[in-house]
Amino acid sequence: MTFSLDQAGRQAWEWLEAASTFSETRDIAREGVTRQCATREHRDVLEALTGWMEALGMSVRLDNAANLIGRHASGTPGARTLLVGSHQDTVPNGGKYDGMMGVILPLALIKYLQEYDIALPFHIDVVAFSDEEGTRFSSTLLGSKVLAGTFEPEMLKATDDEGVTLESALKAFGCDPARIPEDRYRPEEVIAFLEAHIEQGPQLEQASLPVGVVSAITGIERHQITVRGMAGHAGTVPMSLRRDALVGAAEVIRHVDALCKGTDDLVGVVGKIENAPNGVNVIPQTTTLSIELRSPRDEVRRRAREQLLEQIRVSLEALDLTFDHAQTYEQSAVQCSPWLTATLEEAVKDSGITPRVLFSGAGHDGLAMADLCDISMLFLRCREGVSHHPSEAIEPEDLTAAVEVLAHACQRLARRQPQA
Amino acid sequence: MTFSLDQAGRQAWEWLEAASTFSETRDIAREGVTRQCATREHRDVLEALTGWMEALGMSVRLDNAANLIGRHASGTPGARTLLVGSHQDTVPNGGKYDGMMGVILPLALIKYLQEYDIALPFHIDVVAFSDEEGTRFSSTLLGSKVLAGTFEPEMLKATDDEGVTLESALKAFGCDPARIPEDRYRPEEVIAFLEAHIEQGPQLEQASLPVGVVSAITGIERHQITVRGMAGHAGTVPMSLRRDALVGAAEVIRHVDALCKGTDDLVGVVGKIENAPNGVNVIPQTTTLSIELRSPRDEVRRRAREQLLEQIRVSLEALDLTFDHAQTYEQSAVQCSPWLTATLEEAVKDSGITPRVLFSGAGHDGLAMADLCDISMLFLRCREGVSHHPSEAIEPEDLTAAVEVLAHACQRLARRQPQA
Repeated sequence: MTFSLDQAGRQAWEWLEAASTFSETRDIAREGVTRQCATREHRDVLEALTGWMEALGMSVRLDNAANLIGRHASGTPGARTLLVGSHQDTVPNGGKYDGMMGVILPLALIKYLQEYDIALPFHIDVVAFSDEEGTRFSSTLLGSKVLAGTFEPEMLKATDDEGVTLESALKAFGCDPARIPEDRYRPEEVIAFLEAHIEQGPQLEQASLPVGVVSAITGIERHQITVRGMAGHAGTVPMSLRRDALVGAAEVIRHVDALCKGTDDLVGVVGKIENAPNGVNVIPQTTTLSIELRSPRDEVRRRAREQLLEQIRVSLEALDLTFDHAQTYEQSAVQCSPWLTATLEEAVKDSGITPRVLFSGAGHDGLAMADLCDISMLFLRCREGVSHHPSEAIEPEDLTAAVEVLAHACQRLARRQPQA
Repeated sequence: MTFSLDQAGRQAWEWLEAASTFSETRDIAREGVTRQCATREHRDVLEALTGWMEALGMSVRLDNAANLIGRHASGTPGARTLLVGSHQDTVPNGGKYDGMMGVILPLALIKYLQEYDIALPFHIDVVAFSDEEGTRFSSTLLGSKVLAGTFEPEMLKATDDEGVTLESALKAFGCDPARIPEDRYRPEEVIAFLEAHIEQGPQLEQASLPVGVVSAITGIERHQITVRGMAGHAGTVPMSLRRDALVGAAEVIRHVDALCKGTDDLVGVVGKIENAPNGVNVIPQTTTLSIELRSPRDEVRRRAREQLLEQIRVSLEALDLTFDHAQTYEQSAVQCSPWLTATLEEAVKDSGITPRVLFSGAGHDGLAMADLCDISMLFLRCREGVSHHPSEAIEPEDLTAAVEVLAHACQRLARRQPQA
């Protein structure tokens, strides 16, 4: 054997280390990786990826939304395409693996397939999506929406903190935003979209499993609650006459936590709180909170929302407080394709690993790609469930396991795939 | 009668209106009064006060801490001094009455005494304390500490937001800070210190009483609690594994509120909260809160503190959270002199008003003056208990009532006072 699975895993590790150096931050160990859409770092990492792809004999192109797409072409006439990949961008001070690992792993897979002369009846298009996190232009899933054909030209007007529009940033990157509609894939040419990603949670680590198969991508809703009381001197207003907004906010926090802890398939958090006037000796007048609820089952999430808003109404009324409520975001859950998830499960078993199915509590490019084709995801264990942080970490052996699972999955897809 | 009590009340009202115009803010109705220590506004208001005092035949001096002191001298040889007054400074965007009313009312009283040729066997020294709120140099009770002889020269190094020291501000104001020790009164020359002040709370308004007599000035303690959890992705960490600092903070808020509501003579608040990283989709890692407890009975406050810290410890431990705790401030309660409070109560009855005794939940110059002499306070009703706000309001008739009470109090003190 010239190139073992171990070597494929090590190759992925080396490429990931190299890719992490393309970062706005210098000290990766301490400050993590910062790589936003249509920046110098984005250009540099695409240049490196292009080199690695071309060395694998892939044909590479940049689309008009700054997605890099490398094709490992099939010799089969009229072959359809398996889309794989993930996003090149990171949150500010993020880790080395969230996103980039899902771009690199397919390259290690292709190197492995080539070494063993494994021909497939479909093309593999490896995509480095330009912008999934959405931190630069406050709009997530840019790259995948373009491929799925759901990109709204309105998004081009979004601006970054410097006032640069997405449109001008893409132009400066060498793209022609007016031609974005041409970059969509057609459903009939695509088999499925498959993404490898770190779990971003602790479940696989706790189960001592290198990989897991994703059944659904969570639905998300966000709310803003403003609790209104009456400011006053913290020494002179008797307790019985106080209308303390922060005391009401504490009830909201407690309700969110208790409801989510008591409901299966539901997580939620009050992540953000702003209190006014926020002085040590002033009774709080106004406290604004965010509420986020997530569930892979939309009906669970919606029922929880209604229950929660009722609990909040009752509690705040009892405290003689009023509140404003606005739902600021809602994203339905996306179910992974049962046949594709089942195929991945079989591939996990083929690799001698106990299959574990879990849902993704985070959003991913699959949310957009589901409008184009069947999707599923392979999760890799990450240390202590940490992501979006410089200390994000994985084990090199888990890359080896993931390459093996992907190879088995391709072979299963090849057998399933009608020859053209 | 040439000058009725009504006229005295109206005179006080007019002087208060005039004094309110000496403000850093221009639009008093909307922005309130801003007058800090050793500023142009301070100089301007002292100039006006000096004019009014001199017109009453008082001798006026500025001491080395920028206190203005006007003496209504007694003809009695070897007379001692009744100190009355309040602070000239306001919080930023404060009201017209908090402080200044306690300077102006004694002037209306003196005008009334003169009109009726009421001679007293003691001097009345009316003090416009330079700085009680402490907002400019972050150090309260400057003026009263100087008169009481407890001023620490170290305080002169305190700086304002512009980096100007108290020492240089006082020099620029025409004071000689090195001579501050000479400005203290001697206990043997002082009868008592009496301050009129708006209630800053709703009790007199609710009881339909124009004035009330103060039995004690609250003790205050402040704490900072930092609740420490573990940040994490709000979608991917299962509820059972979360260590959410804000959920712990909500428990702290609840405990403070419940304990104070359930304990007589105790008020408390969590006025300030800072949450990190404070993102809608991140589990809170660190939440810092202020806790303030106030009571006119130090033992009640200290017992509550111990109970509270134990409740916090138990609740946070159950949530697998840790916390840091620091007590940042403690000020013991000061009891008003029973004989002086009783004298005020009698004076209230003399005026045909039902006497009501209450404690002050706010700090006042009396806290410092108690180190020099017996103290008490007369509270005036204020609209909706509002203070430290542009909408701070009083009724003109209540000024009339207060002048009458003060006049009766002076006559009772005169009868009580051994002739020198």
